[in-house]
Amino acid sequence: MTTKEVAVWLLERDKFLLLTHVRPDGDTIGSAAALCRALRDLGKEAYLLKNHGITATYAPYAEGLWAAEDYVPATVVSVDTAALSLFIDNAEQYKSRVDLAIDHHGSQEFFANQTCLEAESAACGEVVYDIIRHMTPITAEIALPLYVAISTDCGCFQYGNTTPRTHRIAAELMELVDVRDVNKALFRTKSPVRLKMESRMVEEMTLHDDNRVVVMSIPLALRREMNATEADIEELSSLAALVEGTDCGITLRELREGVIKISLRSTGPRVDASAVCAQLGGGGHRGAAGATVEGTMAEVKAAVLEAVSKVTEA
Amino acid sequence: MTTKEVAVWLLERDKFLLLTHVRPDGDTIGSAAALCRALRDLGKEAYLLKNHGITATYAPYAEGLWAAEDYVPATVVSVDTAALSLFIDNAEQYKSRVDLAIDHHGSQEFFANQTCLEAESAACGEVVYDIIRHMTPITAEIALPLYVAISTDCGCFQYGNTTPRTHRIAAELMELVDVRDVNKALFRTKSPVRLKMESRMVEEMTLHDDNRVVVMSIPLALRREMNATEADIEELSSLAALVEGTDCGITLRELREGVIKISLRSTGPRVDASAVCAQLGGGGHRGAAGATVEGTMAEVKAAVLEAVSKVTEA
Repeated sequence: MTTKEVAVWLLERDKFLLLTHVRPDGDTIGSAAALCRALRDLGKEAYLLKNHGITATYAPYAEGLWAAEDYVPATVVSVDTAALSLFIDNAEQYKSRVDLAIDHHGSQEFFANQTCLEAESAACGEVVYDIIRHMTPITAEIALPLYVAISTDCGCFQYGNTTPRTHRIAAELMELVDVRDVNKALFRTKSPVRLKMESRMVEEMTLHDDNRVVVMSIPLALRREMNATEADIEELSSLAALVEGTDCGITLRELREGVIKISLRSTGPRVDASAVCAQLGGGGHRGAAGATVEGTMAEVKAAVLEAVSKVTEA
Repeated sequence: MTTKEVAVWLLERDKFLLLTHVRPDGDTIGSAAALCRALRDLGKEAYLLKNHGITATYAPYAEGLWAAEDYVPATVVSVDTAALSLFIDNAEQYKSRVDLAIDHHGSQEFFANQTCLEAESAACGEVVYDIIRHMTPITAEIALPLYVAISTDCGCFQYGNTTPRTHRIAAELMELVDVRDVNKALFRTKSPVRLKMESRMVEEMTLHDDNRVVVMSIPLALRREMNATEADIEELSSLAALVEGTDCGITLRELREGVIKISLRSTGPRVDASAVCAQLGGGGHRGAAGATVEGTMAEVKAAVLEAVSKVTEA
């Protein structure tokens, strides 16, 4: 369906339940929140299915939008969700009856009765923006979650998925709402604990394979010493991908004594992250993959470096 | 002068020399390079005065544009330069004969015969974009340095100076040139030395004024120990502005024995960075300002903290 067809389709329906994906990010929450508010502006009943995985970062945007447990929807819409495997636990009952999926992932599995897919959009928020524009005026309350959706999925306009259209939509949204505090909170704030964790990771990083591979570690001892929360160590694996001259960033995080989570980021054509992690019982994409293995930091580091060299030799 | 008046003025003249500011950033180099290329497209002679402080980060954008030492200009234009004190050493002879200053700093000192100032622009690149649009088509060769100018001065659309217009211009430029490699190089790559400099700055940072003010230092000794180049330490002052809970980030960089460059970033309404730096003989914007003063690190730190407390008391 085109965004215009979706708008017509939505206008004909009511009693909406909007589904977000597991480990919710800014795009799924922001897109669902914006659509929910737009539907309410049109006089319709609309809620988000409670997503218990939501973090403090995105919770404010869904405030007042969660459905009561006994809510009985007539129309079920999933947002930013490529596959049924990404459904949250409490959405189990809706898996076979999603009326519409709105998405931007090329890997969309077409599990819904209707699908609106725009794979060239940087964020699902761009698709939702178009849909809402065909239905009702965009208010400040709609613009804010849309901006969160779009800006988070393109790394605040830094990632390669950013298009001229992404910027034009951002411009429109900024006419309606002040995003300075959002930008500061989402992209330019780090807790002192997180900054110090990063510092230690950098000081202890090691370079391998003619300085093309960098390894960073987060031992349990460091986490305990810093008294770090989950939020303090979220997304820490992106740090290794920054190191100039390298095309393969490996982060080893000790989950518990003797169990290490490997996160691998490849920023060039040389290393296929997914192929490396497949050798260690994990998986993922070409650019980002992971695996969880048993062993000491030293053992796992040796194993992952060997896996990298095997893949790049081939 | 308005940008349209500047366009008419430029079209009437020839033999241009474009001046960039000391410790050149992306905005001054990108703006000058774009304007230089546009003037050349119009069949005019145009060069940038050699800026010996240019780093490897921005050097590619000025390649082929530097004036020969014996070049005799008829028209001298400064770009992104608020004051004569920011002139490079080899521009001494032009201080009293700048024909036009193109700038976006509220602290512009009107040292030129003519001034085109748009203080609400996020970057001087936005002003130059408007000027060029009144003169000649924007080519890919012009779009690239303009994108560098604009994106670097607004932290890739993250800073509070970003406006809807900033995004709209970015959209126009992205229609003309692929900026993905530029974004990766400018915003998602750090040298190992730079990462280690940042680590040390974080480990030695101090908090003041109920943890609302953070001070980071770059002593000469650290720079020497790390063997850091100019590129390794440019824009390091944005680090202090990241610290959660603070609204004023101060970076003290020892330029040479007994001379400290203060960079101040204010992320809230409480501290006017420009007012703080004005007390120390410097200037800038409300959100970002600087000053260069004599003294030891300890003396300058005390002086800037006192200046902050004076401004916030008032």
